[in-house]
Amino acid sequence: MTHSTDIHQDVASLNARLANIQTKSGYALGLETEEGVLDLTATGAALGMSAPRDMDDLLQHGLGEQVRRIRDAVADRPETAVLIKLQDVIFAPLVTRPEKIICVGFNYEKHAEETGTPIPKAPPLFAKFSNALNHHNGVVTLPTRVDSHFDYETELVIVFGRRCRDVKEEEALDYVAGYSIGNDVSARTLQQQTTQITAGKISDGFAPVGPWLVTRDRIADPNNLRLQTFFNGERRQDWTTSDMIFDCRKLISYITGIMTIQPGDILFTGTPQGVILGEKIPAMLRRWVKPGDEVISTIEGLGELRVTYE
Amino acid sequence: MTHSTDIHQDVASLNARLANIQTKSGYALGLETEEGVLDLTATGAALGMSAPRDMDDLLQHGLGEQVRRIRDAVADRPETAVLIKLQDVIFAPLVTRPEKIICVGFNYEKHAEETGTPIPKAPPLFAKFSNALNHHNGVVTLPTRVDSHFDYETELVIVFGRRCRDVKEEEALDYVAGYSIGNDVSARTLQQQTTQITAGKISDGFAPVGPWLVTRDRIADPNNLRLQTFFNGERRQDWTTSDMIFDCRKLISYITGIMTIQPGDILFTGTPQGVILGEKIPAMLRRWVKPGDEVISTIEGLGELRVTYE
Repeated sequence: MTHSTDIHQDVASLNARLANIQTKSGYALGLETEEGVLDLTATGAALGMSAPRDMDDLLQHGLGEQVRRIRDAVADRPETAVLIKLQDVIFAPLVTRPEKIICVGFNYEKHAEETGTPIPKAPPLFAKFSNALNHHNGVVTLPTRVDSHFDYETELVIVFGRRCRDVKEEEALDYVAGYSIGNDVSARTLQQQTTQITAGKISDGFAPVGPWLVTRDRIADPNNLRLQTFFNGERRQDWTTSDMIFDCRKLISYITGIMTIQPGDILFTGTPQGVILGEKIPAMLRRWVKPGDEVISTIEGLGELRVTYE
Repeated sequence: MTHSTDIHQDVASLNARLANIQTKSGYALGLETEEGVLDLTATGAALGMSAPRDMDDLLQHGLGEQVRRIRDAVADRPETAVLIKLQDVIFAPLVTRPEKIICVGFNYEKHAEETGTPIPKAPPLFAKFSNALNHHNGVVTLPTRVDSHFDYETELVIVFGRRCRDVKEEEALDYVAGYSIGNDVSARTLQQQTTQITAGKISDGFAPVGPWLVTRDRIADPNNLRLQTFFNGERRQDWTTSDMIFDCRKLISYITGIMTIQPGDILFTGTPQGVILGEKIPAMLRRWVKPGDEVISTIEGLGELRVTYE
């Protein structure tokens, strides 16, 4: 067994929901427990044990074994646990320093249809940058100077745990550390101004991801999860990840045929139908996302990601 | 005068050609001199002075004043200079940790025409990631498993020196640290597989940039520079940056209307006509870039960027 395999299995097999949290001393790695979120970084320090500094450190350096050891040590010495009540946790972006935020467009047939886009023959890729990262309970500042047609897109997000290149479909999920929820916030006028949709996808804060990294061993099949979006409380998207045109395995195989994936890289896998752009009403009557609105994105087993807009 | 203005003027007004170089101790910042390339990082250490660790450090932390001080100190004590003969310099990618590598497609009319693309009404943006960064005298490993139609695209590259958002055209160049040469290596089959060209642009090593960061004060007008490409010694591109559809000022204003630029971010401004994809010969007869080939990209005042392929 190679070193990189060890690293990988470490995180993917933790059977945990982990968060990147904001504390007084900066980012830290949090672990969901029945009593609240365990600050693994602070608890490790209290125990005199090595601990991941934050989620990026966990993923990029494969520190799952440190999490396992701290969890065991806390079970023996519960008084050392640095616990934060769930309602007091300040979530950070799930990762903050990924090399890549890769996105796939038009990966559900009915979404391609509702936006008037041909069904793609290969995954249409685009990108976001780290300036776009945002978090659970985060606020998206809408760039109202340059667009007014803002939309939501709830998506399953893959978080990679292991460096890989040229991966076969059968082995593709072996490189996944876990899963999360993303909202591919979109500025539709910018998106449709040219043939390339990227301009409508890259504004600051346009990539909320979270709240949890749910480790791979908790999700039997990433392509069998119910996905929903609630826009100001109204259910707008309700579909299943089983309907992706290119499923998670195919996406990973395709992308790693093109380039090397690094641990900590994240992949937005596309959104199903139900976005504002696809509403079957006259464009003038569309009620786009505006300051003061709330979008809650949920995926079965992954929790719920909430953002508001200003 | 604000702090950020000071930082900016520091680098942009150095009247220098700077390089990110590879030394035995890692990356270092190099300065072109008549006697060779001065290793500013090592020279600073020899003088007991603070020095930028490398180009990213210079740009992201605005350390132009340190360069100025070391240059002055070396003039007084030439025996402290750590000089490398130009032919012995190992160039690194110009920057290695940018938050963003932003690219513009179809920004010259005749290039849009030769590729059968409509003249864009706004800058069509796409992205590369840091895995793509490559350097002068670098080798591009072609992903021949997934494509066989590889092409070159010589482009003026803007390197930002200052954080900015919502910049007016008149002030746009104030945020530029300097300029360099880029080769937007392209895999045409991947690029044309879907509506989104990104897949053909993001392979490992597909973003050679260099050799120099030429500080802004040395370039009177970035939109008045001759640009050429030599493919195995044959001149293939020969045009002027004055012909951009969206000039540097317009690009910066457009992009900063969408998102925040950080120092160290880089922008590929598009390529003119003369790429292999645009050749007016039957597609079957096109002679694409293959292992063993050499592409030299030159821009007036910026030097020449050479890459080979394997």
